[in-house]
Amino acid sequence: MKKVVLGFSGGLDTTFCVKHLGEDKGYEIHSVIVNTGGFSEEELKKIEAHAYKLGVKTHTTVDAVKGYYDKMIKYLVFGNVLKNNTYPLSVSAERLVQALHIAEHAKALKADAVAHGSTGAGNDQVRFDMVFNIVLPGVEIITPIRDLKLSREAEIEYLKGKGVEMNFEKAAYSINKGLWGTSVGGRETLSSKGLLPEEAWPTQVTKSGAEEVKLHFEKGELTAVNDKTFAHPSEAIQYLQTIAGAYGVGRDIHVGDTIIGIKGRVGFEAAAPMVILKAHHALEKHVLTKWQLSWKDNIANFYGNWMHEGQILDPVMRDIEAFLQSSQANVTGDVFVQLQPYYFQVIGIESKYDLMNSKFGKYGEMNNGWTGEDVRGFTKIFGNQTAMFHMVKDSNEQ
Amino acid sequence: MKKVVLGFSGGLDTTFCVKHLGEDKGYEIHSVIVNTGGFSEEELKKIEAHAYKLGVKTHTTVDAVKGYYDKMIKYLVFGNVLKNNTYPLSVSAERLVQALHIAEHAKALKADAVAHGSTGAGNDQVRFDMVFNIVLPGVEIITPIRDLKLSREAEIEYLKGKGVEMNFEKAAYSINKGLWGTSVGGRETLSSKGLLPEEAWPTQVTKSGAEEVKLHFEKGELTAVNDKTFAHPSEAIQYLQTIAGAYGVGRDIHVGDTIIGIKGRVGFEAAAPMVILKAHHALEKHVLTKWQLSWKDNIANFYGNWMHEGQILDPVMRDIEAFLQSSQANVTGDVFVQLQPYYFQVIGIESKYDLMNSKFGKYGEMNNGWTGEDVRGFTKIFGNQTAMFHMVKDSNEQ
Amino acid sequence: MKKVVLGFSGGLDTTFCVKHLGEDKGYEIHSVIVNTGGFSEEELKKIEAHAYKLGVKTHTTVDAVKGYYDKMIKYLVFGNVLKNNTYPLSVSAERLVQALHIAEHAKALKADAVAHGSTGAGNDQVRFDMVFNIVLPGVEIITPIRDLKLSREAEIEYLKGKGVEMNFEKAAYSINKGLWGTSVGGRETLSSKGLLPEEAWPTQVTKSGAEEVKLHFEKGELTAVNDKTFAHPSEAIQYLQTIAGAYGVGRDIHVGDTIIGIKGRVGFEAAAPMVILKAHHALEKHVLTKWQLSWKDNIANFYGNWMHEGQILDPVMRDIEAFLQSSQANVTGDVFVQLQPYYFQVIGIESKYDLMNSKFGKYGEMNNGWTGEDVRGFTKIFGNQTAMFHMVKDSNEQ
Amino acid sequence: MKKVVLGFSGGLDTTFCVKHLGEDKGYEIHSVIVNTGGFSEEELKKIEAHAYKLGVKTHTTVDAVKGYYDKMIKYLVFGNVLKNNTYPLSVSAERLVQALHIAEHAKALKADAVAHGSTGAGNDQVRFDMVFNIVLPGVEIITPIRDLKLSREAEIEYLKGKGVEMNFEKAAYSINKGLWGTSVGGRETLSSKGLLPEEAWPTQVTKSGAEEVKLHFEKGELTAVNDKTFAHPSEAIQYLQTIAGAYGVGRDIHVGDTIIGIKGRVGFEAAAPMVILKAHHALEKHVLTKWQLSWKDNIANFYGNWMHEGQILDPVMRDIEAFLQSSQANVTGDVFVQLQPYYFQVIGIESKYDLMNSKFGKYGEMNNGWTGEDVRGFTKIFGNQTAMFHMVKDSNEQ
Repeated sequence: MKKVVLGFSGGLDTTFCVKHLGEDKGYEIHSVIVNTGGFSEEELKKIEAHAYKLGVKTHTTVDAVKGYYDKMIKYLVFGNVLKNNTYPLSVSAERLVQALHIAEHAKALKADAVAHGSTGAGNDQVRFDMVFNIVLPGVEIITPIRDLKLSREAEIEYLKGKGVEMNFEKAAYSINKGLWGTSVGGRETLSSKGLLPEEAWPTQVTKSGAEEVKLHFEKGELTAVNDKTFAHPSEAIQYLQTIAGAYGVGRDIHVGDTIIGIKGRVGFEAAAPMVILKAHHALEKHVLTKWQLSWKDNIANFYGNWMHEGQILDPVMRDIEAFLQSSQANVTGDVFVQLQPYYFQVIGIESKYDLMNSKFGKYGEMNNGWTGEDVRGFTKIFGNQTAMFHMVKDSNEQ
Repeated sequence: MKKVVLGFSGGLDTTFCVKHLGEDKGYEIHSVIVNTGGFSEEELKKIEAHAYKLGVKTHTTVDAVKGYYDKMIKYLVFGNVLKNNTYPLSVSAERLVQALHIAEHAKALKADAVAHGSTGAGNDQVRFDMVFNIVLPGVEIITPIRDLKLSREAEIEYLKGKGVEMNFEKAAYSINKGLWGTSVGGRETLSSKGLLPEEAWPTQVTKSGAEEVKLHFEKGELTAVNDKTFAHPSEAIQYLQTIAGAYGVGRDIHVGDTIIGIKGRVGFEAAAPMVILKAHHALEKHVLTKWQLSWKDNIANFYGNWMHEGQILDPVMRDIEAFLQSSQANVTGDVFVQLQPYYFQVIGIESKYDLMNSKFGKYGEMNNGWTGEDVRGFTKIFGNQTAMFHMVKDSNEQ
Repeated sequence: MKKVVLGFSGGLDTTFCVKHLGEDKGYEIHSVIVNTGGFSEEELKKIEAHAYKLGVKTHTTVDAVKGYYDKMIKYLVFGNVLKNNTYPLSVSAERLVQALHIAEHAKALKADAVAHGSTGAGNDQVRFDMVFNIVLPGVEIITPIRDLKLSREAEIEYLKGKGVEMNFEKAAYSINKGLWGTSVGGRETLSSKGLLPEEAWPTQVTKSGAEEVKLHFEKGELTAVNDKTFAHPSEAIQYLQTIAGAYGVGRDIHVGDTIIGIKGRVGFEAAAPMVILKAHHALEKHVLTKWQLSWKDNIANFYGNWMHEGQILDPVMRDIEAFLQSSQANVTGDVFVQLQPYYFQVIGIESKYDLMNSKFGKYGEMNNGWTGEDVRGFTKIFGNQTAMFHMVKDSNEQ
Repeated sequence: MKKVVLGFSGGLDTTFCVKHLGEDKGYEIHSVIVNTGGFSEEELKKIEAHAYKLGVKTHTTVDAVKGYYDKMIKYLVFGNVLKNNTYPLSVSAERLVQALHIAEHAKALKADAVAHGSTGAGNDQVRFDMVFNIVLPGVEIITPIRDLKLSREAEIEYLKGKGVEMNFEKAAYSINKGLWGTSVGGRETLSSKGLLPEEAWPTQVTKSGAEEVKLHFEKGELTAVNDKTFAHPSEAIQYLQTIAGAYGVGRDIHVGDTIIGIKGRVGFEAAAPMVILKAHHALEKHVLTKWQLSWKDNIANFYGNWMHEGQILDPVMRDIEAFLQSSQANVTGDVFVQLQPYYFQVIGIESKYDLMNSKFGKYGEMNNGWTGEDVRGFTKIFGNQTAMFHMVKDSNEQ
């Protein structure tokens, strides 16, 4: 009997996949769920029970939260990555981590095939196929939902016919939750205009007034929040999320280019990620040199896009990570952030690497390091070539 | 008698310059004030009177608002330029326009010298020197404040000794206003931490609730607000400022690298600029291709930095402007923005060039343009090289 | 009867396509050959006769040389484009011009289908498919060679069976000639090592000694060679080719990434293109500013790669062309080149826009424009931030 | 008595500095010569004797060759750095190494001042000042030649007056030799046109015919030449120089932007560097992915320019070095080069990391990894957005 490893979330599509692969195609099914921070213990238990009830041979739950941070989120923070200056790449990164774990599982089981429940219309199919093609050369990739193009109704009918019992109701908004944010899609995001209604947001605003939080970074990584330290930065993120989430900060709508070339729009809430990214960037503005900031922007922008497009295994990503890691040597210090309902502000930073308050020079004050004459000379030389350009140009125009 | 053209704002420093250049140095003084949108008619009149009372030979007021927009702001909008992802370059751009007008004036008058009141500690000295060195080769640049290094008190004493009457009180915050934003410096911005107090903001928050505004862009330029059209985009900006300013949106603190290498921190309020930039960018995300967005970011980032550093006359700036102008061919449509006290959100866009709602394909929906099989093939080829890389790598590791 | 427009070169593959499409598939065939500078009048006549003899309904010869230059080569020169610093993109650009003309022809004829003879292993299939998908949405693309995967022998047998008479011998090297160079593939290029043998080069070395040529550029375009002027730059290129080709300059082997991800190696000779590109670049080094040179490199590199990958219709290409066009304002002057068997040297340039010999300053000579003190001040300020960085670093390490 | 550390080459300018600093200014002089590969043991001995005869307190010879390679050349090779696509940055890198060693010496001696013999017209003054400002904050920098602006004749007269005996004749060409190349300046390089005459080149062409050399790289570093291995790559470079130099390869004229904004032109011969750079790049084209090659180009170009401008101590340089180091993981293999008088060709490579001859796919051959249908799907999706762009555009133009 041929073995297939199936990425399984317990939703309608992957439930269909189990029945279809097992009963129509005759595969021995090994389902896997990779938790990137979006599932509670209880939910994972239910999904496991559901899988076994559907008839899988084995079901595996992978706790990927720490690895997800170590392999991807860390670098997204180092690079202050926001796709199109808006979106923290929550889902993009998550899918790749899931794909990598599923592929490793399939490799370990020497599976004949690997399956995922993506449709033919979005980014996820590319991310899963991409990783599977690379990590599992020669292993068949099966995508029943994409290939059969069944409507939701047809899937439900099929499953009911097989005696499957589950909640068949469609949620008003499709929600995807993970350590680095929660995406929210629905009616308003299907067109080019419209905000999500207040009730669509998974985390409701329950705090008012203003609250200050202190984030401590060590070499670019969040290690403490309000002086509370954590064994792993992923825990600091989760802790910050409980504080910041209740203010409704980090909500936005992202408009972006899918890998397959169409434009898409999706809502997301990412309180901790947005606060961390802005705080981290603020700290960097104080401790990095101008060209470090400039190159980081440039290279991290590519890093984010290339990850978004599923290319995490291209070795150029390792090279960029080496750059980013090196750039964080002095990104150590405290950042103070003020949270308020729906928005937040970075109040400032404290760092022993702060280049702003060096004894050497302060903005707006005369200093001992150099003189006005030095700046006069600087400017003359700094503008030398453009001055020559204009002299030559003028001499030709006369 | 030797002629000097002096950039004149009527403040303490440039008032000192008039007396010093005229009475100590024996120059015939021609003062110029260049209005980039920060002065009212009444203020300009007062400054003129003040100049003549101080003894200038001529005083000239240049209305530079439209030219400021046409030469610089337009491209800052096309490029969605925010320095360090924060600051709309308000003061940076303004100084260059002022320097260019002062230089033209000095050229027209065949002046022997040109003077400005900058200190030796900031960016402005570089911008003025830079433009003067280029446009006025061979003309002496005089910078009394930078050269004499007088304290504020010494300047006041000097002026009182000369019988000058003016308001000698120091404002708690130094404020610089122009069409593209108002900078606010003071106690809190001198250190690495601290927000400006509410009362320090020149524009106070006087509106509450939420208000929707509609911005219409034609080829990247704001031409109408709430269906009200304007003869020139600079007027649309000013009109939007009256609406958005009262919500206190577009306030922030910028931490950045000065041209002379030190880090500086400055508050600013720029309600209209920030709303325009974010609205324009949102429209672009819908109508431009992925690589247009990517290259625009890259090149406009440089454009902003290079302008910030005073290099507006480098011909590379003209080349970049040609790129940016070309990129705006389809950036036409309406953008809907919701204003609320202290923050705003882009609700969405409507454009006949919207690539999102093309009949060709919609995110999340199967379509007629291509099939799941096409995407499967795409992904195989798209990941081909990385797959080969890993095959070769694995074969070497065995 | 359904109409198909077929890109036709008269070789084995496209000859097969005519018979297959006409007799097996029942199409009315309209063959097109697009001459990008590689065919003589006589060859084109022969190809036309061959087409009609095979039974096409119409055969059209498009003289695309000038348009090829105007739409693509011009910008490749402006950008000094050499893929992987080696290859002038001869074939890449040519295929796109051919695809565009074929597509226009199909549009004009309201063809039901369009066909090309590419295999499934190279770049050309992508370029043809790409342009046809975009210019001819909804029109079927037929690719018999790719789909049927016939061996050369099978094709010959099929054609002999159909009574076709033509030269069925296989050339030792496959050669593709056009205005911007000739590619040469064969035994040696199939592996990672090996130079092409002398006799494989289409243009043999027939000159010895050294010869100086003078190239005149106007705004970046080659308009005269040795004071001989031409009605169109494409003619200047062809004339230069007759001079430089006989020295065997511009021969090399390119190793590059195909669009489909595999690495390929191909020989090419491109005497005129290489001389023009190096001469143009030399002129630019004298007349452009540092940042013009830097940005041109950066952006033109992308332009070349994106064209190579078939993406000439992405609007970002128009934006880049606007940048490149703007950058050529002063790229006017003479460049002197010395040709010798197998290599050439740029001797130097003469231009009224030369920034090197400005009165303002000469390398290695003291001058009037600035002083050693100015440079001392410049360096202090230019290194300010790095100096502060090290002071802060050292103070933390003590 | 105040101590000064003086960079000393034994030439006219630095000889003048010793006398001037010692006898006119009363300094205790500690001269240093830093050998970056350009001096023989014998020359160094002579220079030492000359220094002591002039009256220095101590003279120190630093053998910097290996460190020069480890700190700079290595990364220039990793990055295939050629300034303006021509110049291997020979002198630029060398000066920085010299400045760093001189600064360390001054620090160790607790010198009151540091001196160099640069004029006020070139790049070197900036490089020395830059490093001294950063490494020796507060230590005075003395530059007698720049400050006194003496003519050559005046210096000679002064020295003759002091009884100094040395060769006062001016060489027809000024030559600067180091491990990474030799620069040659003279009559022809002072104008925009002209090649150096054959006799001006320090290394004369003494070989004819063709010779093949095999270069072995390990993780990007040259470790063997023709199977001869070396303890340190700097020795491999020197060995290759003895082979390739006699063919006169790697000669060229560089036109570039000096740090102070003027254009300069300089001849150079760099046989081993040019062969190594081209061979290394050829190997990379076979073993790196497309985006590794692309990013390496981009980032290394900046690295070279920034080093050229003296900014080696900016921490962004460490970040880039981390990127470059990471990128070399698989740059291991042999490269075969054919040397001929005045030019050379890369014949090919052999590497176990070669992506070209993978079993997975070969250019121009159908393969098992993917099908023509996959490419058809790829192209459809790859061109999706541009197709939509044109559909939307066309629909608006009708």
